[in-house]
Amino acid sequence: MQIAIGLYPGFTALDAIGPYQVFTQVPDVDVVLCAERTGRLSDDNGLLHLDVEHTFAEVTDPDLLLVPGGFITRKLARERDPIVEWVAATHPSTTYTTSVCTGALLLGAAGVLEGLDATTHWSAYDELASYGAQPTEQRVIQQGKVWTAAGVSAGIDLALTLLAEIWGPELSQAVQLGIEYDPQPPYDAGSPTKADPEILDLVRAVSAQREADVLA
Amino acid sequence: MQIAIGLYPGFTALDAIGPYQVFTQVPDVDVVLCAERTGRLSDDNGLLHLDVEHTFAEVTDPDLLLVPGGFITRKLARERDPIVEWVAATHPSTTYTTSVCTGALLLGAAGVLEGLDATTHWSAYDELASYGAQPTEQRVIQQGKVWTAAGVSAGIDLALTLLAEIWGPELSQAVQLGIEYDPQPPYDAGSPTKADPEILDLVRAVSAQREADVLA
Repeated sequence: MQIAIGLYPGFTALDAIGPYQVFTQVPDVDVVLCAERTGRLSDDNGLLHLDVEHTFAEVTDPDLLLVPGGFITRKLARERDPIVEWVAATHPSTTYTTSVCTGALLLGAAGVLEGLDATTHWSAYDELASYGAQPTEQRVIQQGKVWTAAGVSAGIDLALTLLAEIWGPELSQAVQLGIEYDPQPPYDAGSPTKADPEILDLVRAVSAQREADVLA
Repeated sequence: MQIAIGLYPGFTALDAIGPYQVFTQVPDVDVVLCAERTGRLSDDNGLLHLDVEHTFAEVTDPDLLLVPGGFITRKLARERDPIVEWVAATHPSTTYTTSVCTGALLLGAAGVLEGLDATTHWSAYDELASYGAQPTEQRVIQQGKVWTAAGVSAGIDLALTLLAEIWGPELSQAVQLGIEYDPQPPYDAGSPTKADPEILDLVRAVSAQREADVLA
């Protein structure tokens, strides 16, 4: 079984590394990080630099593909970046096609979400709808072989849920215990419905600004 | 304010990237990833390769230092690896000295945990005690300026708790909302007290084997 995580300059680190940490604990699975080109690839902060070893051209038939989000995804989706072409080319033969956060917009641009319920970061529901998806406020949404997760940290929940689906609850629980995933955030404020309205407005403004900076 | 995340070959990716994702959302903070040498540095799976830009020798006075864990930490602790020397040298002038998972063993080897309550991955309590710490089953433990977190994913909770301490609850909640950290694991099985005993035994055996592989 091959699990491919597709990357691009400007991805959000935890979107990719949360699922990566979960998937790599499964025995006998080939986890591959790939991008348009090999070599240095930086995240959306410009502080984390990966040295990528595999290209999209090498990874043509993954069983499971996962695409992380980032502030740049709207631009990549509109421009049909190589990662969109890779999703479109590989999706027909995958067993699971999945995304975290605004990675869903890349699935959308590849035509994967037409008519499906899907989710993304809470700030990007409108953009998601523009690809024919029904934005849905759940942490992880399964529609046949297409699974989408909410913002950034939701990739951990997505990956553990996929493990339970593919290999059963025992393996999922074993990996959960291995990464000691017994979350205890200091506040219960991690979704728009739970957050203070003023904080919600603030984060919405910051997100919009970061996205505008990327597009500028 | 400078936040330094100290890395070494064989670190566990999510231990570092969870806190990295949280810290990098704080305005006007200098987050730096550093290691003994610049250049390529691989995680404990040998699949994720970073291109590190800063050395320990450059980062001599961080306000906050964080050390992630990994299967190799027991070896590094015993051999007084350069990361242990870096912690020992910088700890006296930090405002916060922190660890995730078995990164606590590196703090221990640097002499930071003597006489303190501390935590680490649940499989490493005995080793932690050997450094004079009192192993304590909490997700995040604060002892003066020394904060330790439980295994792997606990670094996210640690970092959000630190944000609340340093910048106040509003900023912590804003970052939590930004990364949509509203965790919903498919099972409530992420700690030894919650896990099925057979799964606990299995994961204990797998962890011991991976550690033995590193030491071999």
